[in-house]
Amino acid sequence: MTWLDLPADHPFGIHNLPYGVFSTHGTQRRVGVRVGDHVLDVAACAEQAGMESGAVWRAGSLNPFLAQGRAAWTAAREWLTEQLTNEAHRECVEAHLVPVAEVTMHLPIEVADYVDFYASEHHATNVGRMFRPDSEPLTPNWKHLPIGYHGRSGTVVVSGTDIVRPCGQRKPPTEPVPVFGPSARLDIEAELGFVIGGATTLGAPVALADAGEHLFGVVILNDWSARDLQAWEYVPLGPFLGKSFATSISPWVVTMDALGAARVPLPGQDPEPLPYLRGEPTADGASTASGLDISLEVEWNGTVVARPQFRDMYWSPAQMLAHMTVNGATLRDGDLFGSGTISGAEKDTRGSFLELSWSGAERVTLADGSQRTFLEDGDTVVLTAVAPGPDGSVIGLGECVGRVLPAR
Amino acid sequence: MTWLDLPADHPFGIHNLPYGVFSTHGTQRRVGVRVGDHVLDVAACAEQAGMESGAVWRAGSLNPFLAQGRAAWTAAREWLTEQLTNEAHRECVEAHLVPVAEVTMHLPIEVADYVDFYASEHHATNVGRMFRPDSEPLTPNWKHLPIGYHGRSGTVVVSGTDIVRPCGQRKPPTEPVPVFGPSARLDIEAELGFVIGGATTLGAPVALADAGEHLFGVVILNDWSARDLQAWEYVPLGPFLGKSFATSISPWVVTMDALGAARVPLPGQDPEPLPYLRGEPTADGASTASGLDISLEVEWNGTVVARPQFRDMYWSPAQMLAHMTVNGATLRDGDLFGSGTISGAEKDTRGSFLELSWSGAERVTLADGSQRTFLEDGDTVVLTAVAPGPDGSVIGLGECVGRVLPAR
Repeated sequence: MTWLDLPADHPFGIHNLPYGVFSTHGTQRRVGVRVGDHVLDVAACAEQAGMESGAVWRAGSLNPFLAQGRAAWTAAREWLTEQLTNEAHRECVEAHLVPVAEVTMHLPIEVADYVDFYASEHHATNVGRMFRPDSEPLTPNWKHLPIGYHGRSGTVVVSGTDIVRPCGQRKPPTEPVPVFGPSARLDIEAELGFVIGGATTLGAPVALADAGEHLFGVVILNDWSARDLQAWEYVPLGPFLGKSFATSISPWVVTMDALGAARVPLPGQDPEPLPYLRGEPTADGASTASGLDISLEVEWNGTVVARPQFRDMYWSPAQMLAHMTVNGATLRDGDLFGSGTISGAEKDTRGSFLELSWSGAERVTLADGSQRTFLEDGDTVVLTAVAPGPDGSVIGLGECVGRVLPAR
Repeated sequence: MTWLDLPADHPFGIHNLPYGVFSTHGTQRRVGVRVGDHVLDVAACAEQAGMESGAVWRAGSLNPFLAQGRAAWTAAREWLTEQLTNEAHRECVEAHLVPVAEVTMHLPIEVADYVDFYASEHHATNVGRMFRPDSEPLTPNWKHLPIGYHGRSGTVVVSGTDIVRPCGQRKPPTEPVPVFGPSARLDIEAELGFVIGGATTLGAPVALADAGEHLFGVVILNDWSARDLQAWEYVPLGPFLGKSFATSISPWVVTMDALGAARVPLPGQDPEPLPYLRGEPTADGASTASGLDISLEVEWNGTVVARPQFRDMYWSPAQMLAHMTVNGATLRDGDLFGSGTISGAEKDTRGSFLELSWSGAERVTLADGSQRTFLEDGDTVVLTAVAPGPDGSVIGLGECVGRVLPAR
């Protein structure tokens, strides 16, 4: 099917074609498409092929491409597939394939607004039990709307960026007043992030059925969390400094077009949501509110400590998008929303150390025999994810890596 | 003192010199400085004067100027003052003064991150009493840190933009489940917004004493709020759709340099905050954590219904900035933070209709005899603000206007 010499199960095969922003040896940042163990320099390839779209590919972020909207995204994917499968283009394309070992990857988007949802019932239930032990774990609104809040766009960083342990206020239960210092409960949240394009105008909600016009693609997202800062600050207006020090995303944006075979029904919503959040059958037999069968792995200093499954999420990405705009809020090119921590019913599918250690009460043992509750300085967390592609192929989302540096 | 023929108490006199972004008759957006009833076309004036800084003034937002940092802000103010006071420049400057009636004002900044604080003790107490009648009105953290949360940057709009009544979920106490529809409790929040420049790097907090290096100026801010959406959605992760449909700001950014005479001591903080939030005396006898003596007026369909006083705020703008970055979060050029609703002890100093109507229980009577609790379609709200300037002068912040359109 392609003249590229790739094993059928390569995570970056011909059915994937994720977009990122790369540079080589200090050259200008530009758009690349991952193919096997190479990055296609799209601008160079397009220009040699006589296309006039060079400026979009020479940009230092995907935002100009995101602005072009759904029809352009579809056309670009068709063009790329043609370039990589038709032997006639081989010579031209091969001239612009850069080995992945030679590139530096950058933040793929200029993040406009960043919203983080809370769409896993298991995660919300676990957190509710720990943070609010005297109440029902799920708040009364939880099954009626995908709860979300805005995060700090300016501290979204690309995978590989070191994470400095944040300082802040926390109030240990044994102390009468808060103390200041480095967070003692530094945690991760294993999530997926959804990248938006096709900006809208103020006052015009996006209907659930039209979410696909704006959902461009998916990244792996680590919503680093300082649980002690968060617990002290979050009532009544929500998380702030406990989250705003850093959010890491993987460099490759896997398009929704590459995830057609990964669509799955949601686990089930009861009560049925209000009409604007209700999925309807699509022409191809799926639903406008499909889930995604994406499997994550959480690696802590090299030991896989959890395998969160995105198919366990209660709310779908399209539902989150429809909810986010139902009040007329605009979408901008480069908006990003996180799913919230992905946790399932089983302990080994929990996507945060808060849950894996049950708020520090249980230890997680790593391969070297060391034990952990929360993150220690020098620890490295690697999140990876894969999804089923067409014809038994695999769609890889790559990895999202971060290492913890001591507080300054 | 100036060759301009301005009354000494003009709100846009020689001591003010606020920056905005304007256009005339469809021309390119560019930076303007308000002087009396004129707007100085800074780029044209600077270029005629032989300055090389034209590109910054020709930009469609203040962000490039914000990026230049404190020294450039001070130099620009000195240059402008010289242009407007030295008779030698009169002819050159007069050629580039545009009557304010001929300009269209635009959003002055490209908003990077938008944070909204909650820094009025009276407002937080009032809201706590209404939203959480069974608890202490102030949460235990309130006097230890300036509570804040991130809002939606993409829906910050310039004064004069119409506000479409948002739809969303709300749960009337009489209903067993939430209903969907237009907000029935649409409200304002009279605030000040602080504009930030001099971007920082990740992991480097800004100390309280250095806040002035990054605090560029002030706008009037109306944080439109759908109280019914907010009440249903905000537990546990904070306000989301109840706020994200629109936030209006005034077009003129009044610099901190123009507000030197408006600095006042805070009303008093007890308990004393942690060291990173503690004000210290400055060389000129003020404090690194000064308040600001800015008086607002809230006009509802032409009737002044409240006169909130910023000097009543518990936390200072510099404290909010220091807190926002203490975890290492970056500042970007164009970041904006709101103070939270400005409310005082007296009823007529409350900055929201939620408080003025005590959650709808009391009616507000307007000059035409009509009565209100929350906003009706067609209502117009005008927020204005003034501060004392040097030598008995007045520093005007202009106005922030919005009219409510029916839900779509």
